[in-house]
Amino acid sequence: MHAIIHTDASSPSSLEWQTTEAPCITNGEALVELHYAGLNRADTLQAQGHYPPPQGCTDILGLEASGVVKEANGATKPDGSPWNNGDEVAVLLSGGGYAQYAAVPHGQLMPIPEGYSLAQAASIVEVACTVWSNIMMTARVNEGDLVLFHGGGGGIGIFGIQLAKALGARVAVTAGSAEKLATCKKYGADILINYKEQDFAKIIAAEGGADVILDIIGAKYLDANISSLAKDGHMVIIGMQGGVKGELNIGKLLSKRGTISATGLRYRDVDDKARIVKATIENVWPLLADGTITHHIDRIVPITDAAAAHEALLNGEVTGKVVFDIPRPHAE
Amino acid sequence: MHAIIHTDASSPSSLEWQTTEAPCITNGEALVELHYAGLNRADTLQAQGHYPPPQGCTDILGLEASGVVKEANGATKPDGSPWNNGDEVAVLLSGGGYAQYAAVPHGQLMPIPEGYSLAQAASIVEVACTVWSNIMMTARVNEGDLVLFHGGGGGIGIFGIQLAKALGARVAVTAGSAEKLATCKKYGADILINYKEQDFAKIIAAEGGADVILDIIGAKYLDANISSLAKDGHMVIIGMQGGVKGELNIGKLLSKRGTISATGLRYRDVDDKARIVKATIENVWPLLADGTITHHIDRIVPITDAAAAHEALLNGEVTGKVVFDIPRPHAE
Repeated sequence: MHAIIHTDASSPSSLEWQTTEAPCITNGEALVELHYAGLNRADTLQAQGHYPPPQGCTDILGLEASGVVKEANGATKPDGSPWNNGDEVAVLLSGGGYAQYAAVPHGQLMPIPEGYSLAQAASIVEVACTVWSNIMMTARVNEGDLVLFHGGGGGIGIFGIQLAKALGARVAVTAGSAEKLATCKKYGADILINYKEQDFAKIIAAEGGADVILDIIGAKYLDANISSLAKDGHMVIIGMQGGVKGELNIGKLLSKRGTISATGLRYRDVDDKARIVKATIENVWPLLADGTITHHIDRIVPITDAAAAHEALLNGEVTGKVVFDIPRPHAE
Repeated sequence: MHAIIHTDASSPSSLEWQTTEAPCITNGEALVELHYAGLNRADTLQAQGHYPPPQGCTDILGLEASGVVKEANGATKPDGSPWNNGDEVAVLLSGGGYAQYAAVPHGQLMPIPEGYSLAQAASIVEVACTVWSNIMMTARVNEGDLVLFHGGGGGIGIFGIQLAKALGARVAVTAGSAEKLATCKKYGADILINYKEQDFAKIIAAEGGADVILDIIGAKYLDANISSLAKDGHMVIIGMQGGVKGELNIGKLLSKRGTISATGLRYRDVDDKARIVKATIENVWPLLADGTITHHIDRIVPITDAAAAHEALLNGEVTGKVVFDIPRPHAE
């Protein structure tokens, strides 16, 4: 098969469409012919050498994709019915999405959301599983809660705003420009904070505190996030764009009876991923099908242009998802 | 009524049995004549000026007691049946236990565990509600989990060991002497660590990591506790004997997908306390009744000797609970 090969470890842009061995499936895996793959910031980190794949996983980039089942190998859907060869699927991956074929653990096969194209489906998997698992399975958003998303204008933020609103929460966001905040407002955010001009902790505290915070900043926001927590609030850190180590004021955390979790999707084991995928299909897919949550693709580009797409993402030139179109093996 | 009055804010030992006004009950409170009160380390902190009572709460010390309902005022048990005047009860308090009467929110009245004396019951409330709420309602101990208790030889530790073993967990403890570790072993601890001589994080990591940690140390153990966590582990901080502020390595926490909570019982609202009391009665009281968890009283002393008892506790002269015997009002 063909896949994007990272040919030079020292150069993040050395992403070339080359011939490589197709994956072999083992017990519990299905073989999927991939037609589209989603581009994630994590892919750019991996290309920079900062986000190694889990042990035993392929080095090929790509955490989400869509395509057609080639060998179901006994896979069943969450409802118990079988996956069949030829079924269209979206897939959650630990790696390997930038390729014509992937070996996918049975629990990470997902139906295409009703009304979604394969390109749309390929690019919603990672964000949907990430946001659902964090704000509902790790923290637990309740109706009437205040939920704070940092980076409101990014993919996680835009999806999170819509999901939290659908769950009956009030939503606050931080972002770095009036334009991004306007986007957040369009998707339903109630409280808009420009972190360059305003003190988010003060504003959130004045609103009674955030019951749930989804954070991508890490150390730099640690103390301000704790100041922002409501009583019994829960902050979940999923990114460390603002540093890895920070001072924790345990006394302040205790005064809120607060909780801090730091999580990720990629290194979970297959059972854990299956649990998250199942919950996401049950709870999020209907919200995609009925349009409660909308999904914006910025552009679909040939996967042979992966290097340029990474660069565009890193240069801030992308406002929705970038999707890679993967050439079909039989068309080559 | 009589109560222990802290007569000189600058002197922790100025605890005198004096006349003061009896409490007035409001809607949702019962009046209880107290016969015994438990001594907690938190009481000594409050006498030192470090642990102020919640707003609206009496200044009188005492977080747990037992006695007889004088005015049920419509209180019902968790099972819906009424509390009657004359019923014996144990009570969870925000303060006011060192007195002849207390106004107790309905949700904080508890039956006397089967086979327990009033003195035993008075001194099990705080530890039972604290340990149950933290290891089961905040963290969630599962069968086969490894649970680590710091200060294994203290009241929380001894109770925690027994409860965690009853839940099917493996239990590790840290303590500062061979004698204390022997006590921990007697109560069922599987892994005994002398923190003065051994590196607990190394030992716990070699055991696969702790799924749940109940910590009373705070800052000093923050990093070592994170090193000790198993994947998806949860540490709950309920004390800060080792300092309030410490460096948090978010990257290390994320590599474990770890969670840190910092909690306390005293400042929770009445609904939250009622929820904890109800769960404790349902889940812990049967384990007291059938002897699965045993409870050791070090001494029962007249409450007029409160100052001396505080001193004995602070001097490390106490190995189980100290219970105060409260003179009955009609006997004076």
